[in-house]
Amino acid sequence: MKLKIINPNTTQSMTEKIGQCARAVAQADTRIIAVSPRMGPASIESHYDEALSVPGILDEILLGEREGVDGYVIACFGDPGLYAAREVARGPVIGIAEAAMHAASFIGTSFSVVTTLSRTCNIAWHLAERYGMERFCRNVRASDLPVLDLEKPGSDARRIITDACRQALAEDRSDCIVLGCAGMTDLCEEIADAIGAPVIDGVTCAVKMAEALVSVRLSTSKRGDWARPLPKAYAGMLSQYALNG
Amino acid sequence: MKLKIINPNTTQSMTEKIGQCARAVAQADTRIIAVSPRMGPASIESHYDEALSVPGILDEILLGEREGVDGYVIACFGDPGLYAAREVARGPVIGIAEAAMHAASFIGTSFSVVTTLSRTCNIAWHLAERYGMERFCRNVRASDLPVLDLEKPGSDARRIITDACRQALAEDRSDCIVLGCAGMTDLCEEIADAIGAPVIDGVTCAVKMAEALVSVRLSTSKRGDWARPLPKAYAGMLSQYALNG
Amino acid sequence: MKLKIINPNTTQSMTEKIGQCARAVAQADTRIIAVSPRMGPASIESHYDEALSVPGILDEILLGEREGVDGYVIACFGDPGLYAAREVARGPVIGIAEAAMHAASFIGTSFSVVTTLSRTCNIAWHLAERYGMERFCRNVRASDLPVLDLEKPGSDARRIITDACRQALAEDRSDCIVLGCAGMTDLCEEIADAIGAPVIDGVTCAVKMAEALVSVRLSTSKRGDWARPLPKAYAGMLSQYALNG
Amino acid sequence: MKLKIINPNTTQSMTEKIGQCARAVAQADTRIIAVSPRMGPASIESHYDEALSVPGILDEILLGEREGVDGYVIACFGDPGLYAAREVARGPVIGIAEAAMHAASFIGTSFSVVTTLSRTCNIAWHLAERYGMERFCRNVRASDLPVLDLEKPGSDARRIITDACRQALAEDRSDCIVLGCAGMTDLCEEIADAIGAPVIDGVTCAVKMAEALVSVRLSTSKRGDWARPLPKAYAGMLSQYALNG
Amino acid sequence: MKLKIINPNTTQSMTEKIGQCARAVAQADTRIIAVSPRMGPASIESHYDEALSVPGILDEILLGEREGVDGYVIACFGDPGLYAAREVARGPVIGIAEAAMHAASFIGTSFSVVTTLSRTCNIAWHLAERYGMERFCRNVRASDLPVLDLEKPGSDARRIITDACRQALAEDRSDCIVLGCAGMTDLCEEIADAIGAPVIDGVTCAVKMAEALVSVRLSTSKRGDWARPLPKAYAGMLSQYALNG
Amino acid sequence: MKLKIINPNTTQSMTEKIGQCARAVAQADTRIIAVSPRMGPASIESHYDEALSVPGILDEILLGEREGVDGYVIACFGDPGLYAAREVARGPVIGIAEAAMHAASFIGTSFSVVTTLSRTCNIAWHLAERYGMERFCRNVRASDLPVLDLEKPGSDARRIITDACRQALAEDRSDCIVLGCAGMTDLCEEIADAIGAPVIDGVTCAVKMAEALVSVRLSTSKRGDWARPLPKAYAGMLSQYALNG
Repeated sequence: MKLKIINPNTTQSMTEKIGQCARAVAQADTRIIAVSPRMGPASIESHYDEALSVPGILDEILLGEREGVDGYVIACFGDPGLYAAREVARGPVIGIAEAAMHAASFIGTSFSVVTTLSRTCNIAWHLAERYGMERFCRNVRASDLPVLDLEKPGSDARRIITDACRQALAEDRSDCIVLGCAGMTDLCEEIADAIGAPVIDGVTCAVKMAEALVSVRLSTSKRGDWARPLPKAYAGMLSQYALNG
Repeated sequence: MKLKIINPNTTQSMTEKIGQCARAVAQADTRIIAVSPRMGPASIESHYDEALSVPGILDEILLGEREGVDGYVIACFGDPGLYAAREVARGPVIGIAEAAMHAASFIGTSFSVVTTLSRTCNIAWHLAERYGMERFCRNVRASDLPVLDLEKPGSDARRIITDACRQALAEDRSDCIVLGCAGMTDLCEEIADAIGAPVIDGVTCAVKMAEALVSVRLSTSKRGDWARPLPKAYAGMLSQYALNG
Repeated sequence: MKLKIINPNTTQSMTEKIGQCARAVAQADTRIIAVSPRMGPASIESHYDEALSVPGILDEILLGEREGVDGYVIACFGDPGLYAAREVARGPVIGIAEAAMHAASFIGTSFSVVTTLSRTCNIAWHLAERYGMERFCRNVRASDLPVLDLEKPGSDARRIITDACRQALAEDRSDCIVLGCAGMTDLCEEIADAIGAPVIDGVTCAVKMAEALVSVRLSTSKRGDWARPLPKAYAGMLSQYALNG
Repeated sequence: MKLKIINPNTTQSMTEKIGQCARAVAQADTRIIAVSPRMGPASIESHYDEALSVPGILDEILLGEREGVDGYVIACFGDPGLYAAREVARGPVIGIAEAAMHAASFIGTSFSVVTTLSRTCNIAWHLAERYGMERFCRNVRASDLPVLDLEKPGSDARRIITDACRQALAEDRSDCIVLGCAGMTDLCEEIADAIGAPVIDGVTCAVKMAEALVSVRLSTSKRGDWARPLPKAYAGMLSQYALNG
Repeated sequence: MKLKIINPNTTQSMTEKIGQCARAVAQADTRIIAVSPRMGPASIESHYDEALSVPGILDEILLGEREGVDGYVIACFGDPGLYAAREVARGPVIGIAEAAMHAASFIGTSFSVVTTLSRTCNIAWHLAERYGMERFCRNVRASDLPVLDLEKPGSDARRIITDACRQALAEDRSDCIVLGCAGMTDLCEEIADAIGAPVIDGVTCAVKMAEALVSVRLSTSKRGDWARPLPKAYAGMLSQYALNG
Repeated sequence: MKLKIINPNTTQSMTEKIGQCARAVAQADTRIIAVSPRMGPASIESHYDEALSVPGILDEILLGEREGVDGYVIACFGDPGLYAAREVARGPVIGIAEAAMHAASFIGTSFSVVTTLSRTCNIAWHLAERYGMERFCRNVRASDLPVLDLEKPGSDARRIITDACRQALAEDRSDCIVLGCAGMTDLCEEIADAIGAPVIDGVTCAVKMAEALVSVRLSTSKRGDWARPLPKAYAGMLSQYALNG
């Protein structure tokens, strides 16, 4: 099967890292396509950035539909544009926050999210609530690292995040840790070893969940509010987004 | 004070109607500016439409900041882009679903929303939950009218919506009705008279709530996740959205 | 319009202060009548005090109805008698806890209440739940000041409350502060300046919310459990409360 | 032990019926005192009636404290004044809605309340939520009988209520029925026989719960918001309610 | 009446202690039978132990039905097998966690559970949620004592638990304490005296609740999911559990 | 990898069917072992049956640990013994209700469960709540088929269940259907085709979820309440369940 992993920011080094981690867990017969959109923010650290990442994500979904993609992963922990993407994709679409939180609920009675900036903690809480995972989420902790520090070779990011994970286990008394940024995907196993508890990365989990759905032939229901959008006029800069009937 | 009412779709007749209803309830010293964005969908009837209405809304907010606007109303019942708008506006920003649901909770123990297409009912439920208003919301009912039928002079819209409101009172045993589309703002008093129960229109309520906040000098807290977004690069078609520090 | 602000305790200095703050934010054409009931406790610091403040509040509402009052504010943070008042008033009735909590939810993702005695914290939590505002309320903090200390000229109240607000911001990580007593209404702007975050006073917010509802011609629905009470015999000391049909 | 059952309305025939049913289930060594207050409404069918029943209830609690009462039951399904009563009583105080709902949760996975007028249904829902019993409550059904019809010898009340109970079982698929008015206490066994399912009467349950608490020497905690109210001035008609320190 | 108290573990000293405490609060005409099952774990400190205590509990219920037992208490704070027991018993069945939590909600606005090992805290939280008591439960605290240390004459258990209760009052600001293990039943009054706040023991409360239900002739509804199980084949070691129709 | 699918009842035809459906979706390198326990009920249709299926399930898990099993699926829609199994297994353990409900939440905004007997509906609701999936579950519908009717060649089961699924779509307005019994696993695709909406079978979903967790090297956290049980004595018929340290 063909899975498209969309990194909603335009930072190519992160997209490559995400692609590598995805390929490392995919089935032999799964082809992973990892992309960044053609437009939008270099990183996503606010509701503003998130909202403005969505046109680029939808552009990639519309492209993917023409390319015969079987399923999609949106690889930003805010799961931006997830519902809109489900409306226009034929195959399943999974967000990495969604995949990671659900996986955490299968292996522990509680988890803590360790993310980047404090200002994004609320976004993670809202997703936990939306997905029914709030009851398992003991805390969302900011490491106060900007997202792009995860891409800087000599940065202290690795140590700072590992410390935040260790602190989460001790103070929140959580059973496991959910990494709150796609850019942390390559740190997952290393941190798990360092802290001696399960650490969950949404990128790899989402790849496996998408594969699972495709394998059992499940895709987004088109009966309800995720039905294909109605055709209509789109004005100005966004006129390209008008769909056919 | 200067309030900007943003109709997130590009249908000008609806924007004018919204402006008129807003002016009818505003204080003598309030100046109402009603606009449609320069880009985006002709009507909002899906997550896809909603997501793609946000760049246009944010464009109007950024313009408004340069025009010295004191407060904003987002006049679509999905309250699209509300949190992103709060990040970039100095004054308060109110969504019409938010205003209507809160007002309903002040005058009744329960309300039903009467909206346009079924596929948007879930969006209203999600907002009710987000705002803490789910406990008052007994039902979200679709009239199965497309949004733009509300703009067609000879249409049956008025009767269909009045009937749906009457049915909501009878079957949901709700105390009052919330109109679930900005395009219904001019029908509010007429329907209230017809059904003999309070009918709440978000456009007029949001204008008064925005005025209230400006009057008591309250605006969006910048301490938490609605702080001003960090400056960063924006690529491609969206490069104009990069903010200064 | 004519708004009646009922301070449910019998302490006249507090009533005057409340009246002044209400007038400072009211529209030019709003007439504010601020009163204390003819009976009841000097301050409200328990369920017992609260229950026994209600006959006096209802007495003032019944009087107000004869005086042509358009809307009411109940100016005690426990919102005593709110539902009973709504049953007998023609116009809208707003509680100050209700108004403050709703306003807080428009400008922040979270608030802390700073109130007087610890024993009343639960009352505030119950209201937050009743109004659907529990999800925004991070903490209810007692300053352990008795209510009437707020009326003593030389008291330390101002400093103690400002400190509690500052602590709430730091420890609860709340976006804004809700003042948990009508007697704090005059401190609102000063504390906001001191702590650098929005501070919300229920008295002024309730005045504006009541004005808003009157302006858009919304009043308590009489269809449900806030319909006018049935006429019936009242015995003993309370015989005056018997209503006509 | 000495238990005082307070019927919060002033209808003496109901008080006598309540006393008889209470005595029928009490332990041999329990003395039941059943009273109506010296003031207040003839029946309780609104928030207004309920609020104005509380001064009479508290009067009886204050009297009871001087009479050496060991525990109290408030015998109106709205449990009026329960928290205020707990503040001033030494022994436990139980409401009949509270007792009935808790008992129902011990013997079934779901219950329906069958009560008098529709306008009081919301009060029952609020109590269910307050007590944590909302998850067991499938429905609150009004029989649309005024309370005092239950006292009229030749009335149809018995049949109407039995029918409503039968309908509740069938339509709500509830396991058992909670009677929503103290005036139905004498109908409990008869209805249970008629409908073939458990029917729960709050009066008898509350007597046994109060006995249970007294027997294991548990009474209201005085550490939190049910501590004894502070002494203070009470003005006007209510001056008698001022407590000593 | 005849009540059977089942201590689900096989430690006889604990069973005797439970029987004594139960008899001390029972009515004069109640006969208490306290037993341990014929099979199962020596103590219950995991989901595994709990699951494997249930066959022994059900064996005692089936025996009890032949002995004419009127009601049952399951005396382990995880309330193991409660719903299965209700399906096969004619009379009411009460769990001690259930009884203690409900009693706590009658006398305080909040409680903390003090239990044995940390790994069982989640079980108590799940029960609190199941019973609707989560809103009253501020904390579940482990003393990190293994259950059987409560049976060792010279152990420090008494002091350790009293200290944990005192800490709970101070740190959780709870109104009262629920003891989280049947083996603590004899410590209840002593700890209450030591800490100056109500302490609730499930064993004695459950006895009184079971007596209460039997007295008002209430027993498990057989209409819903607690109906008698269908007859069917049982294989292997468990063949004795096959029920007749 | 080696996955063990435990059908908790002793009906061998169902076990074989489950094994076949599991193999049809498994990865090429996954070996599926499908078993029934050596003891317990022929079908699971009550809390009693469910409780008594757990010793057999745990027996198979303990065996599996000696056989080098990498992950487990518990193939009964009540997910019996799931938490106890997680305590004793090294690899992940997934319940079929858990897997199906989570998968449903990835592809629709709402689902209805279609199950066997009415008396088991509550069990499904409890699981939905436990897993955080209650918000997506619109209804649990009984077809009133006994479980073993699904094994009878000439039975009407197929038609009855398809009809119940069709009715669920129409009346509950759900986006998709969750099959509420492992014995329905072979009907999944056929019903999906018949009703034109996604139908989710827990057996196949659980196989893929277990594979996913093993692939990303996640297993049950041993830090919290799913740590390995403490060694202790087990009496009587269950003495074989005593674990080593």
